[in-house]
Amino acid sequence: MTQPAPAQAALPSHSGVTDLYFDFLCPYAWRGLELADVLRREHGLKFRLRHFSLVQGNHAENPDRKYPTWWLTDQVAGQGSEHQAGSLNAFLAGQAAMRQTEDAAWAFTLELLRARHAAPEKADLANDGTMRAAAEGTLNTARFEADFADQEGLRAALRDDLQASASLGVFGTPTYHLPGGDIAYFRFANLVTEPGAALDLWTLYTKVLTDGARIETVKRAK
Amino acid sequence: MTQPAPAQAALPSHSGVTDLYFDFLCPYAWRGLELADVLRREHGLKFRLRHFSLVQGNHAENPDRKYPTWWLTDQVAGQGSEHQAGSLNAFLAGQAAMRQTEDAAWAFTLELLRARHAAPEKADLANDGTMRAAAEGTLNTARFEADFADQEGLRAALRDDLQASASLGVFGTPTYHLPGGDIAYFRFANLVTEPGAALDLWTLYTKVLTDGARIETVKRAK
Repeated sequence: MTQPAPAQAALPSHSGVTDLYFDFLCPYAWRGLELADVLRREHGLKFRLRHFSLVQGNHAENPDRKYPTWWLTDQVAGQGSEHQAGSLNAFLAGQAAMRQTEDAAWAFTLELLRARHAAPEKADLANDGTMRAAAEGTLNTARFEADFADQEGLRAALRDDLQASASLGVFGTPTYHLPGGDIAYFRFANLVTEPGAALDLWTLYTKVLTDGARIETVKRAK
Repeated sequence: MTQPAPAQAALPSHSGVTDLYFDFLCPYAWRGLELADVLRREHGLKFRLRHFSLVQGNHAENPDRKYPTWWLTDQVAGQGSEHQAGSLNAFLAGQAAMRQTEDAAWAFTLELLRARHAAPEKADLANDGTMRAAAEGTLNTARFEADFADQEGLRAALRDDLQASASLGVFGTPTYHLPGGDIAYFRFANLVTEPGAALDLWTLYTKVLTDGARIETVKRAK
């Protein structure tokens, strides 16, 4: 007898679920996850948390980010730049959190993003203390400690996300992959947490992607 | 007594008029102008044609496109790459067309864009014969010949557009600068000429730019 797979992993990627690719390093990903969290809690929309690595995507050894030769998952923990070491550590902690309930995984992920992007001082993602602080009150901490120790299993799960995002051509975060197959980076500057405004914003974004003109880019000049 | 300035030039840039920056080289600019033409003819919206140079914006000697040191308007006619020579020639012809009526200027500009992007064979923009063919049936051709010969005056007018677009940080075309100040590149793949669909698309685009979330980018992954 095998154990049933965790609920999230069992969902085929296009059965009404939007895959949300993000990196803990990115402040726009933080806003994108806050938006999605409101949409799933208040409006019943379904999102799956998935990891995309900016350090890997922008790495000089990966001139074509669709076919990486340099993988974040091949790197030694704690090595490389602060961004490299921090994002790898946060991704692995995030993968450990995803072994618990969906609500717990979201709570942990948001807690970590807020500690990094909404707190007066940016949390150090390379520090395991930051991970444990985010786990307090969001996860079963004993289970988290055990799962977080399984670095090999977590790296394999992270590799799946990095492979999927590379194949799709993800280049920044947040990127939402809609059930219909449309996929686009979506960057907005102002936090949106009011349920009505969140649904309006999501409706606008999805309308842009499904319009018959096949909109490819809207990007402000600066 | 001085002659009144042409109607377009007399409009302050933000009195209900959208400035439309484009380059004749760009197929998305062609679609963007077709859209704007439907909007101005069928729905009474106001657009002003303005030039942005992709060759200048992407030039290696202009690492910061907001502060160019290499200007297309400083180049000798017919020199440089096919894109450089062709776009300079087309811009100058377009500036000459803008000395005639607004409708005539739009007709000429669209004719040239269609010859380049919608015809089975791409029109050669560096060839003055291409300019004369587009002037036939759209402009007063005698006046066009006279105006097109005023290369110095046309270059000065083009320089104004290139300076304005550089200052605004325009990086691609079409870029629309709305009366309210919002400005963004807008790329879509499918031609939209049906009046109702055109208005819907324009409404969607402007809604993205004026939404309270301050949307900065929507860009498909590929």
